[in-house]
Order: sequence, then structure tokens, then C-alpha cells
Amino acid sequence: MSAPTLEDVTAVVTDLATAAKQASRSLATLTTAQKNSVLEAAADAIDAAADTVLAANATDVERAEAAGTEASLVDRLRLTPERIAGITGGLRQVAALPDPVGQVTAGKTLPNGLDLRQVRVPLGVVGFVYEARPNVTVDGFGISFKAGNAVLLRGSSSAADSNAALVAILREVLTTHKVNADAVALLPSETRDSVTALIRARGLVDVVIPRGGAGLISAVVRDATVPTIETGTGNCHIYVHADADVDIATRIIMNAKTRRPSVCNTVETVLIDKAAADAALGPITTALQAQGVVIHSDEPGFEPATEDDWHREYLSLDIALKVVDGLDAAIDHIAEYGTGHTEAIVTGSLTAANEFTARVDAAAVMVNASTAFTDGEQFGFGAEIGISTQKLHARGPMGLTELTSTKWLVWGDGQVRPA
Amino acid sequence: MSAPTLEDVTAVVTDLATAAKQASRSLATLTTAQKNSVLEAAADAIDAAADTVLAANATDVERAEAAGTEASLVDRLRLTPERIAGITGGLRQVAALPDPVGQVTAGKTLPNGLDLRQVRVPLGVVGFVYEARPNVTVDGFGISFKAGNAVLLRGSSSAADSNAALVAILREVLTTHKVNADAVALLPSETRDSVTALIRARGLVDVVIPRGGAGLISAVVRDATVPTIETGTGNCHIYVHADADVDIATRIIMNAKTRRPSVCNTVETVLIDKAAADAALGPITTALQAQGVVIHSDEPGFEPATEDDWHREYLSLDIALKVVDGLDAAIDHIAEYGTGHTEAIVTGSLTAANEFTARVDAAAVMVNASTAFTDGEQFGFGAEIGISTQKLHARGPMGLTELTSTKWLVWGDGQVRPA
Repeated sequence: MSAPTLEDVTAVVTDLATAAKQASRSLATLTTAQKNSVLEAAADAIDAAADTVLAANATDVERAEAAGTEASLVDRLRLTPERIAGITGGLRQVAALPDPVGQVTAGKTLPNGLDLRQVRVPLGVVGFVYEARPNVTVDGFGISFKAGNAVLLRGSSSAADSNAALVAILREVLTTHKVNADAVALLPSETRDSVTALIRARGLVDVVIPRGGAGLISAVVRDATVPTIETGTGNCHIYVHADADVDIATRIIMNAKTRRPSVCNTVETVLIDKAAADAALGPITTALQAQGVVIHSDEPGFEPATEDDWHREYLSLDIALKVVDGLDAAIDHIAEYGTGHTEAIVTGSLTAANEFTARVDAAAVMVNASTAFTDGEQFGFGAEIGISTQKLHARGPMGLTELTSTKWLVWGDGQVRPA
Repeated sequence: MSAPTLEDVTAVVTDLATAAKQASRSLATLTTAQKNSVLEAAADAIDAAADTVLAANATDVERAEAAGTEASLVDRLRLTPERIAGITGGLRQVAALPDPVGQVTAGKTLPNGLDLRQVRVPLGVVGFVYEARPNVTVDGFGISFKAGNAVLLRGSSSAADSNAALVAILREVLTTHKVNADAVALLPSETRDSVTALIRARGLVDVVIPRGGAGLISAVVRDATVPTIETGTGNCHIYVHADADVDIATRIIMNAKTRRPSVCNTVETVLIDKAAADAALGPITTALQAQGVVIHSDEPGFEPATEDDWHREYLSLDIALKVVDGLDAAIDHIAEYGTGHTEAIVTGSLTAANEFTARVDAAAVMVNASTAFTDGEQFGFGAEIGISTQKLHARGPMGLTELTSTKWLVWGDGQVRPA
């Protein structure tokens, strides 16, 4: 059997996207109660079929282990009864969230008597491209569906069996509830051609959200003709201002680096004000090194830093450290190297805090708090589909609302516009 | 002298975009009062230099006439003392509008005491690509500047002298007010290469808004690596329901077609319900033909309609007309051929009105009102930069708010995230 060509894959993706577009039209008018019933039923169905899902997942895990996949990636891929309970708990949590669809976001009566309302509506068809984490398959469906969208899931080929098992259950639940099952579909994952086809399905797909490494994201941005939302690249900084409390600074930096080094809100560069260096440099670097963090710095006694280190998103127990000459220098450094994710200042000075928050351009700007807080659950969204680092449409943690658009409703009784 | 290459043009555009990015950082922290002073001063300066602007414009107009440009296009290009007064009046109107920057759009105190606020911030650098209308040069600057953005203007080569004269005045006013003059710049317009360079200036330009024909828009969508907002393609429909008042339907259709046929909110296709056809077809078509409108239809006695007619955005005194078999058929037709701009129903039935507004997917959906109302000024925005027909970020008429993003501010006193 020869490998499918881009044309073959495009035909498959186009068919699935066309069906999803058709399904999305009926999703837009489901009531909140109807949507919640489906989400609850999907959770029950996955719980009931846990053994089937675990068996499918075991196949994926065996294949990954046989291929010598890194243990941390196999761990992300692996499902357990507890993790399945977590996944279905997530669906029930989404069912309990307020429905953004139908919210009136603006409105008034115009002088000519026209009644104007701006209401939230689903986007239509959402595409997700994501890594080998089967939980994202169900989360992606749950959040998209609650916001009234059909979803095209392009998971990793390493999770193909798990994803297929989960999507089969979801489609069956939809059918049982007399909802068009094409509201969720799994795209082929053998090659990146299905990503290419997805991001070029203009007119059928309303937005594609890629999750993954810089390579995937830049390929998507380059080749996409459908709108996309960039997520997740975080070269986050913590700036220790001259007036910082050293204990607070140390605690925040330790939390932001060592709590979970592999996530995007991890701090990657610490900037220490020259005026704070005498007091702060010792305690901070000692604490980091005691936890096994490798420090890359121009300061003596550390791994020498190169230009590359200021750009790096290590996602590991590494950190870059620079002594900067004041607030302006810190802000300039962040403007040059930051990725617009999360930037923090530690200071006791109100002036410095105001200056920093006003001038630093990022999805989240923090004062005396750990960068680890940039997270949909922490912000109280109840669900998160990623953290947008772009400025259009959504910025920062994205919840249900970010998967909606709006439309203007204009009701009249025969008004025409004067010449 | 050989023509500049794409590389040459890209170098010029990159320099201007880099300078604009730098300028945008200082614009973000200007107060509303500072911005309004600049806008008022710019209006005064253009009024004072009206003769210079008119002289530059005369050069453009002469060149266009010598090239045999269509009279309607020359008319758009032409400035008069009255039109200059309109332009400067527009700047003063923008100065009087509320400043979106700094508005708090969400906020709360989290259980751990973190103080969370989502505030509106400028997008950064906005690019406009537009037709030969010198007023857009000033409007584009005014709206972008009020929202705290630097702006890169890529006008038409036909308006090169007018645009250069206007931008020179704007830059001088900025300098006088100690604002970085690179907050506004005119891109070269000799070739489309400057558009290509602009839409690929990733990391420097935050959004590009193309105004113009379908050719420009699809080229931008295909080649852009910076986010873009599509504007303006309107294949708008009016559906005359079985329960429509024929007089109201006729009045609305006449207004929507003949008031200004060349604009995007013009109706292009009339759908008449089979049940209304006996009563409505005669009066509506008679009224249209009396005003010189050519009707393209499968019904007898008109220009025969082809598949192409259902897709056409005529922007002229032409209209497509189809008799449809009920509400579902009307909605299906609109889903297939509409461009998501403005769709209207004429009906006395509340059920039909609800059904139509819920199921039709467009930037504006109207009941018993002319499609001509889809307009920023009519909606009360005070200023408009175009009508978005996409679903991401902005949908429908775009005002100042649509030229902003948000950022999350998180203030704490040392909070770290539990493991």
C-alpha cells in the first residue's frame, strides 16, 4: 500500500470539514439544556466504556514504548482509571459552566427606532492540532461543543488508538441524542498533510488552534489560510526591582521555575536590578541551585550565557539570569526577548509596579506573583483550551467565550436609510 | 533607473515597520488628553494647509484623468475644500469619542487574594491597505492613534501626492507634540510588493486590514503571516417571507439597492417566498425596473440568471431574484451563497423572524430593516474603519474598540501557586 498523497489526505479532511460545517449549523440553535445533557451523557458513556478506552490506550503506550519514546511523553500519553475519571469530571465541569452563546454583549435602540443587539454566537467549526495527550481529545470536544461549535481534532499519531476509541464514544452519544455526529471528527494523523489540509480549509473551518512546539506553530502561521490562534510559547521573565523583598522574590522565582518546569508559564529568565544585586543575587541563585536549576548568566560562577539563552524557552531546570541597569533596561530586555506570554515584577514600589504594568506588552503582567498563575483554571474560567500569545481575538488563557463570535441583530418595522 | 525589487521594497517597509513598532511603545502610555490634543491639532493643521493638500491632490487627479481613469474613481480621489472640512471634522469627532484604552473589561479578586483585571490596550502597529481615497489616510491615522496604535498606511499609487501631503502634516503635528512621528508612515505604493512586505512583517505588525476588491483580499489572506481582518465583501440578501407586508418589502429593497449601489451593504439578491410571490413579485420588480435596476432571475420576463448571479456582488444597478420554497430554502440559499455580511428578512411573523435571526450566520441579521444600516456611523460608533466579514476578533462594523487588544494585570503580595 503506498502512502496517501497530500491530495488524498486533503480530500478526506475536506469531507470531514464539510460535514462538520453542516453539523455546526444545527449546533448553533441547541439550547443550553440540550448541550449539557449531551456533555453529561458523554461523561457517563466514557466512564462506562473505560475498559475499552484503557485497552486502546494500552496499544498506543506499547507502540510508543517499542519505538523508544521518552518516558515523560509516554507518561502524558498513558491513561489510567484515575485519569479517565479526571477527563469525565472535566466534561461535567464544562456542563456546569455558563453558556456564552446567546449572551447579549451590547445593545441599544437607535434614534430611528431600530432595536440593535450584539449577541454571542458560536464560531462554527473549530480545529485543534495537539500533542499526544488523549485528555485533550475529550476536553477539546467538550469546550467546543458547549460553545456551540463543531470540532475537528487532529491529535498525535502516537495517541491514534486512544483518540479513535474516545471519538467513537462521543459520536455515538451525539447520535443517541439526535445531534449530528459530525459535530466531532478525528482527522488522520499519519502525516502532517492533514494539518496542512486543515489550515487551508478556508470557508469550512473558522479557526485552527495549534498546540505544540515552535516548529508546528510557525508552519501553521506560514501555511494557514484559515484564521489561527497561536498558543503557548512562553519566554517568561521575572524582574527583581531595586525595592523588591528578597524573600518574596526568591519564593516567586522558585515557584515559577521548579513547580512544573515543562509548562509555558514557567519563568525562563530572571532579571535582577543592579541596585538589588548585592542583596538578592546570592539568596536567589543559592535557592535555585539547591533545587538543581542550572543558571546561565554573564555573572561569574555560572554557565556562561549566550545570546541564545535570552531567547530560550528551556522548559527544563535551566534559567537565564541577567543583572540589568534599572526598570527601563528590564522593560527593554523583555520587549526584545519576551514572547508576550507572562512577565512579572517583584517590587515594593507602587511607581515601579505601575510603570512596569503599563509599559510591558504581554498577555499577563504580574506584580509580586508567580508566573505560574497564568492559567484558565487559576483565573476562574473553569476550563481552558490554551493560552493565546497573540493580540487578536483572544489574549491569555482561553475559555468558552474565546470560542465564540458575535453577530448584530437589527429589528425594525420597515426602516430605510435616508440618502 | 530600474524598478525596485521585492527585496528593496521589503527593506523599506521593514524599516518603517520597525520604527512604527518602536513608536507604538510610547503611544501605549499616552493619556487620552494627550491623544486628543494631537488629533485636534492635526485637524487644525490640515485645515490651515488646505491649499497645499488641494494642490497635491490636483496633481493626482490630473494624472488619473490623463490615464483615462473612470470618472467615478476620479471622483473618489478628488478633494475639495468641503471634503477637507469633512476630513478634519472626522478627526475632531474621533477626538470627542471615548478612549477604549484602559477600560477594564473584566476583573475580580481570586480566593488567594490576587487582584485580577483585564484591561484594554492598543494592538500596537496597524496596517491599512486601501483604495484611492485620501480621506482614508487621515481617518485611518485618527482612529488608530486614538486607540493608541501606530499605523502603516498603504494607499493607492493614484493618491500618492495627496497622501504624502497629508502624512507630512500629520508627522509634523506629532513632532510638535513631542510624540514619535513614526506613529504614522506612508508605505511605497508603486507596486503590490509593499503590500506583500507589510503582510509578512511578522513580529512588527500586529494586524493588517485590507480594504478593496476580492482580488486584494484573497491575495492578502493567502500570503499573510501577520493576522488580518477581512472587510467588505457583501453578497447581501433580503428574504420576503410569506407574511411580509409588500409595501415594507418594496421600500426596504428599493432603499437597499438604489440608495448607493456601490457599497458593500447593498442588497444583491432578493429571495421571494413562493407563498408571497403572487402578491409581491409584481410590485417589487416594477419598482426596481422603474429605477433602472436590471433583474437577473429564473422567473419569466427577466434577464436569465446563471449560477454566477447567485454569487455576484454586483455593486451596480443589478439584482438577482429567486423565488424560494419557504424559510428553510431561504436560509439554505443564504448559507450557500452569502458572504456573512448582512442578511435581512421582511416578515410580520415573530416565529419566522426568530427562526431567521437564530439560524442565519452573518455579521448582521435584520428584521424589517434595510441592509444599508450595517454601518459604524449608523450603529452609533462615531467612526468606522471597515466592516469585518470574518468571525475572529471583530465582526461587523469596526470602531475604536476593534483596534484594541487586552492584557491581564495580576497584582499580588507574594502569592505562589500550590503544587
